[in-house]
Amino acid sequence: MEKSYVVGVDVGGQTTKIGVVDKKGKILSQTVIRSDIFGSDETKYLQALADAINNVIAEAGKAGQIRGVGVGAPNGNYYQGTVYNAPNLAWAVGKTVEFAKILSGNLGGIPVSLTNDANAAAIGEMTYGAAKGMKNFIMITLGTGVGSGIIVDGKLVYGHDGFAGELGHTTAIRGGRQCNCGLKGCLETYCSAIGVARTAKEWLETRSEPSLLRNIENVSSKDVYDAAKMGDKLALDIFDYTGTILGQSFANFVAFSAPEAIVLFGGLARSKEFLTEPILKAMNDNLLPAWKNKVKLIYSSLKESDAAILGASALAWEL
Amino acid sequence: MEKSYVVGVDVGGQTTKIGVVDKKGKILSQTVIRSDIFGSDETKYLQALADAINNVIAEAGKAGQIRGVGVGAPNGNYYQGTVYNAPNLAWAVGKTVEFAKILSGNLGGIPVSLTNDANAAAIGEMTYGAAKGMKNFIMITLGTGVGSGIIVDGKLVYGHDGFAGELGHTTAIRGGRQCNCGLKGCLETYCSAIGVARTAKEWLETRSEPSLLRNIENVSSKDVYDAAKMGDKLALDIFDYTGTILGQSFANFVAFSAPEAIVLFGGLARSKEFLTEPILKAMNDNLLPAWKNKVKLIYSSLKESDAAILGASALAWEL
Repeated sequence: MEKSYVVGVDVGGQTTKIGVVDKKGKILSQTVIRSDIFGSDETKYLQALADAINNVIAEAGKAGQIRGVGVGAPNGNYYQGTVYNAPNLAWAVGKTVEFAKILSGNLGGIPVSLTNDANAAAIGEMTYGAAKGMKNFIMITLGTGVGSGIIVDGKLVYGHDGFAGELGHTTAIRGGRQCNCGLKGCLETYCSAIGVARTAKEWLETRSEPSLLRNIENVSSKDVYDAAKMGDKLALDIFDYTGTILGQSFANFVAFSAPEAIVLFGGLARSKEFLTEPILKAMNDNLLPAWKNKVKLIYSSLKESDAAILGASALAWEL
Repeated sequence: MEKSYVVGVDVGGQTTKIGVVDKKGKILSQTVIRSDIFGSDETKYLQALADAINNVIAEAGKAGQIRGVGVGAPNGNYYQGTVYNAPNLAWAVGKTVEFAKILSGNLGGIPVSLTNDANAAAIGEMTYGAAKGMKNFIMITLGTGVGSGIIVDGKLVYGHDGFAGELGHTTAIRGGRQCNCGLKGCLETYCSAIGVARTAKEWLETRSEPSLLRNIENVSSKDVYDAAKMGDKLALDIFDYTGTILGQSFANFVAFSAPEAIVLFGGLARSKEFLTEPILKAMNDNLLPAWKNKVKLIYSSLKESDAAILGASALAWEL
């Protein structure tokens, strides 16, 4: 029987989403399990995951027709099929979990391919989304952190060790904000959801103008968005600042791989009405003449609730 | 007859170097023509070049055995085979020269492949040099300017438009020195031979300590090297500063493509005794834990006089 279906698995800190996907990117059946109730026991988690995958395959009526399972996971390494010391997954803290090998074993040998979540998003966007048909683009995920997946000549860039594409940890501001990774001034400390909230908190202290944000206790990026929607000047300035830093960084990324487009995805990308203009201005101000006003800035076209499963599933087509 | 030989052509502002190369990277015969005596007439230059190529093939006794001609040229575009507005080539200023097409015609149809000089150097290093066998590395040429060629998964990164790998024009210092390209703070304004001379001139004005460099009229990077050799503190500080900026930039490049090594080439790379330590320190200080102390810094192993021809010739093996 032809194996014309794949399974996508998106491993998050709280939940793991699982779906059976066809060649057109239609999700035939899906389910969710908890990621956070297994303590440090990766064996139990991976057994529960295999059970859920088998159920969802049965539900779709596609037993025996699964080409492979694609997994997007924090700190996932494509070459090794491992999850390496992921701070938000209790069963992968301080150790290397042989995720693909164990899961494949639990599934009776169905091949499993694994990469990190931003790489999975990039492959998903190329296979089913806004970057369909593009051979060279850079996916930037603006979520709690800033992730990236780089496509060169139609293929994801994994690099020598499988960890390529950590653009959230390139230096945006030399000697700038302390990052969780141990470095300073990383792009992610300014341009993630948390980065935007940090800017808001800093500016509320150092600036004196009135702002709707002054009434909110623990300002989030969503609060900044809501305030910007109401025309709040401070909130608008925060997006301007965030977009400018993104655009400056994007210009350096373009000088690296000369992509056709930068594709944005993730919670913060929903603020595109406030981000697009400053990003494009700063990017074009910092590009060589050959690229000025030529590199597209586009936003993911995948339904956000499906994107994680689709992205991970797309990896399995290469199996 | 098997076509087991290639021709390498290195187009420079003053001269063009030409050589016939075998599979092992041995140059069988070579010659040089002037690049700068044809005014704006690219037709005459390309005819003179074809004549010289035919001569050098005849001299090596390999007529009919040439697989192709590889060309490294400033602003060379691999996809289009063109040289696009090269300021240092009078016959390519303000226009696009159909270099590969015309040259191939002049050579009776021998295929011609063309890219920029730094890309050619990267392919040469992978084919014959220090990066032999490496699938992922970044070549940085430290000459009058700073060029780069990026190898991902054994292939050169050309990007969407053929202009990828302009790392000399990534921002090293935001709002920094004016670059010839129109941007500010480009890596090349600090870390090329000209950049080192600029640093020397700036520091001689703004600092008051004694230095051997104070006796020299128009300080060059070679003067800085000679002074550093004699233990001159200011000259040593200049290399420390230059190496630190290189290392900081390299850390960002590593976050992009996770290379096995950064390979340095070019006139300024001869100052490796003063550059290696600050580069490695700054690079490792700015790398994520997964890469710290793991990315190699190596220097080209090709004889400098041969490297340009070999680099360009290597391109022709892909034809």
